[in-house]
Amino acid sequence: MTDGRITLAVDAMGGDRAPGEIVAGALGAVDELGVAVRLFGRASEIRACLPGGEPPEHVEMVDCADVIAMGDEPAASVRRLPDSSIVRAADAVRDGEADALVGAGNTGAAMAASLLRMGRVRGIARPAIAVAIPVPGSHPQVLLDAGATVDVEPEWLVQFARMGRIYARTRWGVAEPTVGLLSNGEEEGKGDELRKRTGALLRAEPGFVGNVEGTDLMVPGGPDVVVTDGFSGNLVLKTLEAALRSFSGLVLSILTSESLADVSDRVVPPLVEAAATFDPDVTGGAMLMGVRGVTIISHGSSSARAIVNACGLAAECVRADVVGQLAGTVGRAG
Amino acid sequence: MTDGRITLAVDAMGGDRAPGEIVAGALGAVDELGVAVRLFGRASEIRACLPGGEPPEHVEMVDCADVIAMGDEPAASVRRLPDSSIVRAADAVRDGEADALVGAGNTGAAMAASLLRMGRVRGIARPAIAVAIPVPGSHPQVLLDAGATVDVEPEWLVQFARMGRIYARTRWGVAEPTVGLLSNGEEEGKGDELRKRTGALLRAEPGFVGNVEGTDLMVPGGPDVVVTDGFSGNLVLKTLEAALRSFSGLVLSILTSESLADVSDRVVPPLVEAAATFDPDVTGGAMLMGVRGVTIISHGSSSARAIVNACGLAAECVRADVVGQLAGTVGRAG
Repeated sequence: MTDGRITLAVDAMGGDRAPGEIVAGALGAVDELGVAVRLFGRASEIRACLPGGEPPEHVEMVDCADVIAMGDEPAASVRRLPDSSIVRAADAVRDGEADALVGAGNTGAAMAASLLRMGRVRGIARPAIAVAIPVPGSHPQVLLDAGATVDVEPEWLVQFARMGRIYARTRWGVAEPTVGLLSNGEEEGKGDELRKRTGALLRAEPGFVGNVEGTDLMVPGGPDVVVTDGFSGNLVLKTLEAALRSFSGLVLSILTSESLADVSDRVVPPLVEAAATFDPDVTGGAMLMGVRGVTIISHGSSSARAIVNACGLAAECVRADVVGQLAGTVGRAG
Repeated sequence: MTDGRITLAVDAMGGDRAPGEIVAGALGAVDELGVAVRLFGRASEIRACLPGGEPPEHVEMVDCADVIAMGDEPAASVRRLPDSSIVRAADAVRDGEADALVGAGNTGAAMAASLLRMGRVRGIARPAIAVAIPVPGSHPQVLLDAGATVDVEPEWLVQFARMGRIYARTRWGVAEPTVGLLSNGEEEGKGDELRKRTGALLRAEPGFVGNVEGTDLMVPGGPDVVVTDGFSGNLVLKTLEAALRSFSGLVLSILTSESLADVSDRVVPPLVEAAATFDPDVTGGAMLMGVRGVTIISHGSSSARAIVNACGLAAECVRADVVGQLAGTVGRAG
């Protein structure tokens, strides 16, 4: 920490728009959130993105020789490139030189670096990515796993449920979060073999409301925590993205058409503002839960704004000591 | 057939709004599509929905004593209730007394009745539900399986791919449909164990373009056929529904707010019209592929309009002889 500030290790080289947007976002986070940042990456490239070529107050550069690219095989690259920006950033969190990691690059590499360098929380079998799903008129739902662990065991899904409750409680102050198991029908006994075996275990867990369906997402009254394996969680998340993009594109094309030109100035701005609720740039990335440190994964196309929000989420998770709570409670029902 | 008309066996008792909306939809199909219908269900209840209490021309009632309700266990109910409306309707297709089955009730029961009474197409291991996913500005994509077979083997997914190609070719005239395997990343080797084993087999199939993601849905340029297991297919479909409902609710609430009251009459109608593309009532239900007969499953909340469209899809599948094509080509790559 610097001046008691929360310090974030930001992978300046990760993301489609790195390093420009990432560095801009990190500087924005310092200004807007009062955090300190360490920018990991090639010093010359980072410097080129800094106004005046020098890091301002509360910003530090950590020169790293290597970069793990988007398509690189995660675990092998992490092992092979100890001087890569994402690995060095994970090391900084492990060594107490930063409080949290923020990365928008190769998601698998961010996970592998976190797992291999920070280690798992004792008692957690596998990590899970927790993502906030917007619910108009209510606090978001947390969906996990959104892609960390694609082949799962029922016991791991039970741990995901416990991690999700800690997340919902910490981030949104939900005292007793409800938990639903994502399945292809609400009735007990619906689901594939994995879901059937998991449902039997989850029934002993606090807050469990049974199976839920895709239609229970994004609606008030749905469960606070939605549990699924990383494979289907990823499908669901990307399907949401696709649907919203397709539908909002259609809406905008109509409202900006010639016949409505005289009113588009009035109707489009409030819609764009409201649609921000659904914008992944605004939700601020996802938390990799189950590793011994706060790791926030922002999406590959992150803008500076997305990075500011990811930094905000990182700081929030540090302040709430989500990792400490995990370590304290996830071994037992919580 | 009656007068050379395509004859549809409609389960008049199936669906949240049965029999009223179902019967109204069936009558609408006779008028609009020139088909004949047989209405299966309790004659007294059907009669109460018919103007004048008597079936008009090209409509016939088939009195059935029993009804399989929404929550009933599908296979057991089908075995136990041979005089239920859905089983009798399936029998009619098997016996050549109708060309296709249309049902909006218990989906599992419609599948079980079709499987157990019509039988499987030779060479098909398991059936799959094929659903049209709207793509603005293009023909739809077909996603399968949307929920028939939740625990699958790689070889079955290969058959789903072949069935999907036949569907896309027949319904939308796509000469050489492309096929994507829904996964959590585009790179070869991404996916859970099932996807990895399936990808290896699919690479030998015509039209295969590799892994696709949730973000490849609903966009022009995505694959014509999207293959997945019935568990995740159902999640994806219901997630689409949830996203569109949530987003369109938000859009409408803004455009009908007080501050825009003077223009809402101009902006809302074209949006509602365009949104119909995404309305499951308009897509007309899903085809259960792999059984020896055309079975169209419409969603539980089907309105009369949804039933007309489901009847339209049924007639289209009969005319195109989708089942015959399946039988002829699915054993080998097609």
